[in-house]
Amino acid sequence: MSDLPDVSGLTIGILGGTGDQGKGLARRFALAGHQVIIGSRAADRAQEAADELGGADKGLRGLDNAACATESDIVIIAVPWGGHQATLQALRSELAGKIVVDCVNPMGFDKKGAYALPVEEGSAAQQAEAILTESRVVAAFHHVSAVLLLDPQVDTIDLDVLVLGDDREATDLVQALAAQISGVRGVYGGRLRNAHQVEAFTANLISINRRYKAHAGIRLTDV
Amino acid sequence: MSDLPDVSGLTIGILGGTGDQGKGLARRFALAGHQVIIGSRAADRAQEAADELGGADKGLRGLDNAACATESDIVIIAVPWGGHQATLQALRSELAGKIVVDCVNPMGFDKKGAYALPVEEGSAAQQAEAILTESRVVAAFHHVSAVLLLDPQVDTIDLDVLVLGDDREATDLVQALAAQISGVRGVYGGRLRNAHQVEAFTANLISINRRYKAHAGIRLTDV
Repeated sequence: MSDLPDVSGLTIGILGGTGDQGKGLARRFALAGHQVIIGSRAADRAQEAADELGGADKGLRGLDNAACATESDIVIIAVPWGGHQATLQALRSELAGKIVVDCVNPMGFDKKGAYALPVEEGSAAQQAEAILTESRVVAAFHHVSAVLLLDPQVDTIDLDVLVLGDDREATDLVQALAAQISGVRGVYGGRLRNAHQVEAFTANLISINRRYKAHAGIRLTDV
Repeated sequence: MSDLPDVSGLTIGILGGTGDQGKGLARRFALAGHQVIIGSRAADRAQEAADELGGADKGLRGLDNAACATESDIVIIAVPWGGHQATLQALRSELAGKIVVDCVNPMGFDKKGAYALPVEEGSAAQQAEAILTESRVVAAFHHVSAVLLLDPQVDTIDLDVLVLGDDREATDLVQALAAQISGVRGVYGGRLRNAHQVEAFTANLISINRRYKAHAGIRLTDV
């Protein structure tokens, strides 16, 4: 992990940035000194979320999803699973040529808790890859706790972010991006075809959090 | 994890105990003072594996799979995925009433590395549950490195073993069993329906091991 690229100066876009996960990531990247663009279907809702986090003074602004995609150097997909396919289909040209980071966890909930939903393409990340044929798709940030990301009392987060993909330059860059969050390491986690179990493991973390009243994350040992 | 039951004195059977994973677990449980029975299709091969690890002097003996299942208090399934279904179908009555711990990872390998195989029942553990209707099936020990388990230079293993199941008494007992291995914690990891991603994550660990030249495991943070 010593030879990761310099990512300072990159503008980071977050589609679905008005949700807790997206807003939490936006907050942490802005804290690290990045320009962050929150994307949403409605530009005013996006700007509202950016303002909640401190707005332009903190490096944050809000735009509609298409403008967010166009104006960002790297784009994180943090939309709800229900809107994943349609959102990406609508942004194919805006996302062409860019590194797109999918952090969506396809999950269902019933009285027994959370469980992984089947995905025809194998995983949300592989669905993104199938739609965004001109983009460089990476999967990462599945296990970060939105609660911790948003908590002003939490300075550092004790977590390894698993970064999956088939494009070494892109996964290296996203590993470096993960490390912008204080306490976090970005660790290569395998090819995109092995993304399903990383997405699905979020259901296990939810069970673990219930049992132990925790905000559990994972660390890789011996790495 | 403070209220886990006392498991000292339990005789542990390991079906498929002549493979590296099974032999490694046998070695560590024997080191912790347990009586361990290695099971195999052929009793003489099982006894050979037990002798390699020190035999009766170390608390280890070998029997055929059926006798191993009958004489053990708790039985770990460590057979290759290819033999999983047939082995369990043949041992339904011997395993009735017992806690059965499945640690099998259904995986394929090609030139791109390891990947998770689809399982009709959802996971190896759920296949075991479907076959062993009279047993108490728990999933655990998926991510332990056979290399580390077998290495006499390795005193403690830096790993959380995720323990999954729907029977609280059984998962508590298997958590306590995991903690018999020096360095290891047994952590509840969710219901059996969320076992697939834990089994499949072994493919990611193989990718991580290749990239970082490591024997990676996981630790849960904030637990």
